[in-house]
Amino acid sequence: MKQREDHVTTVGELGESGVLARVLAQLSDSDAAIVGPGDDCAVLRTVGDVVVTTDTMIEGPDFRLAWHDGFELGWKLAATNLSDVAAMGARPTALTVALAVPRETPVSLLERIAEGLDAACRALAPGCGVVGGDLGRAPVIVASVTAVGDLEGRAAVLRSGATPGDIVAYAGELGLAGLGLSVLFAEAADGDGLAHSRSLPELWRTHPEAIAAQLAPAPPIPLGVAAAEAGATAMMDVSDSLSIDAGRMAVASDARIAFDAERLRLAFGVQSDVEVPVDAMLYGGEDHGLLATFPAEAILPTGFRVIGEVVSAQAPDERITLDSAPLTARGWDPYTVQYPGAA
Amino acid sequence: MKQREDHVTTVGELGESGVLARVLAQLSDSDAAIVGPGDDCAVLRTVGDVVVTTDTMIEGPDFRLAWHDGFELGWKLAATNLSDVAAMGARPTALTVALAVPRETPVSLLERIAEGLDAACRALAPGCGVVGGDLGRAPVIVASVTAVGDLEGRAAVLRSGATPGDIVAYAGELGLAGLGLSVLFAEAADGDGLAHSRSLPELWRTHPEAIAAQLAPAPPIPLGVAAAEAGATAMMDVSDSLSIDAGRMAVASDARIAFDAERLRLAFGVQSDVEVPVDAMLYGGEDHGLLATFPAEAILPTGFRVIGEVVSAQAPDERITLDSAPLTARGWDPYTVQYPGAA
Repeated sequence: MKQREDHVTTVGELGESGVLARVLAQLSDSDAAIVGPGDDCAVLRTVGDVVVTTDTMIEGPDFRLAWHDGFELGWKLAATNLSDVAAMGARPTALTVALAVPRETPVSLLERIAEGLDAACRALAPGCGVVGGDLGRAPVIVASVTAVGDLEGRAAVLRSGATPGDIVAYAGELGLAGLGLSVLFAEAADGDGLAHSRSLPELWRTHPEAIAAQLAPAPPIPLGVAAAEAGATAMMDVSDSLSIDAGRMAVASDARIAFDAERLRLAFGVQSDVEVPVDAMLYGGEDHGLLATFPAEAILPTGFRVIGEVVSAQAPDERITLDSAPLTARGWDPYTVQYPGAA
Repeated sequence: MKQREDHVTTVGELGESGVLARVLAQLSDSDAAIVGPGDDCAVLRTVGDVVVTTDTMIEGPDFRLAWHDGFELGWKLAATNLSDVAAMGARPTALTVALAVPRETPVSLLERIAEGLDAACRALAPGCGVVGGDLGRAPVIVASVTAVGDLEGRAAVLRSGATPGDIVAYAGELGLAGLGLSVLFAEAADGDGLAHSRSLPELWRTHPEAIAAQLAPAPPIPLGVAAAEAGATAMMDVSDSLSIDAGRMAVASDARIAFDAERLRLAFGVQSDVEVPVDAMLYGGEDHGLLATFPAEAILPTGFRVIGEVVSAQAPDERITLDSAPLTARGWDPYTVQYPGAA
């Protein structure tokens, strides 16, 4: 039967097996998968101990379709989970994806999510792929991704191993994703949240790096293994903000993390031609780069830049400092930190 | 501050970290976990290749709070994922849980879900436990569980290995969960779906085995490893129905699965004093027992009962038979198969 050209096929119309076939067609194999999607479980060839993490993105609190195309949503879902695997010093081997969506969701949106998941794996963690999943129905889009990684015989790098005398280093974009969110929020300030669907192309044009960092972050996943091999004593991905996550590392390690503003400015003050203020570095989140500590004599993998040092804990309420002054940990607040040049 | 005794603390009031602390308090350790919840990933000590599976339960299509207490919901979430791991011949080592709930959800419901997850692991797969998760906000409860298992050096048992001449066997309850659903639906026939919250205790009293099988199934998880060690050529957990899942196994194996009604009646005609008709065995779902094929000379692990044999595929549309007559695969339909003695 010929369909009207403007007809959009929905998930409800196509049914689970039809949707699944369309989604699976977007996916590449995982190198580690002896068995991929289609059996009760996927089977992963495994060398060392494995790491596993789960992260969910929910329409509304975590993303808006007016900002995120399905491709970017899939990309970000993969990137945020891959960075958790990298932060343990593991190589990502596989993702599973549980998607619950409204019946009226266009099938093409799910295809785009799968494309984004797959593209992020190929770009950020070659060899990793989606090996299984589940489709369900919910009033809003709920996407849960679980990532598995292989330590390949290495010990996991925990957040609790930072030791006084260690240097503190960071790899990846820092603060750009937060600036991107600031741009998006600034544009929504007096709108209904849908304004973005119209202004988004313009924002992409005026602030391409910051918008890309927010909507489709590209953390340096292979540097997780490199850091572990270089002797990293502690590592985390920075999801909430550098100040919040460094505070967590300091508490877990019972130490203090002392940031150096001049080093931050030198290393991350200009990223892809964008000026990034130190405040954006400290309080922006969602870059998903790698914060790691190394012994002072370690040779840092290319991509890591020194931004401070680990010192003895002085007081439980003084876990992070900037140029020796106590720092209050907080995450991105689009109403206090302005993007340079944004409205 | 003293709270009114009837005050129910909600997820929205307590916030993520508070809820997480209450939930984590319900969980036991996983034996395989070198690192449990609290870092970027959990770390699992691993012997062989690993298997991974994801299954989601969504309020509405998959469960109703009027029927499922949080404990049973958590139990069923664990059981359905553990049985997928068992069906590969693997030992379950860990679960991760992504929960999205409305703000007004009582924290106690999440504690009960965690209790149920933990209790099911301890009862069905001792040593397995929840090692990580994620909490989010959604208009209905969406619970995604990912299970990881260790093949411990064994090859995975796939659904594609059934070979003509093999015997077909099943372990676990068969049809009881479907009978339980029939009872629940019969009681809801002219109600608003909330009738159950009032009639549920009565149903538990009159049909305890069927209600338990539906709300908190107890598949024989350790028999997955036992079947693999006994030489199982193919294995699946029966989630949709014996006829549907056997049909999938037959297609994947390019063979035909021939059921024997007399053997089905002998092996599963009476379960826990409940009479189970062959129709309920073939068309009921959600028992999550193990369907496996073995070479004719294999010594079956205790718990497996022979219910048929694998024969050569005759025609692509004749994948399953009952006493040599073609059988149409279908799942549970509460309006055509009546529970003996139900209204």
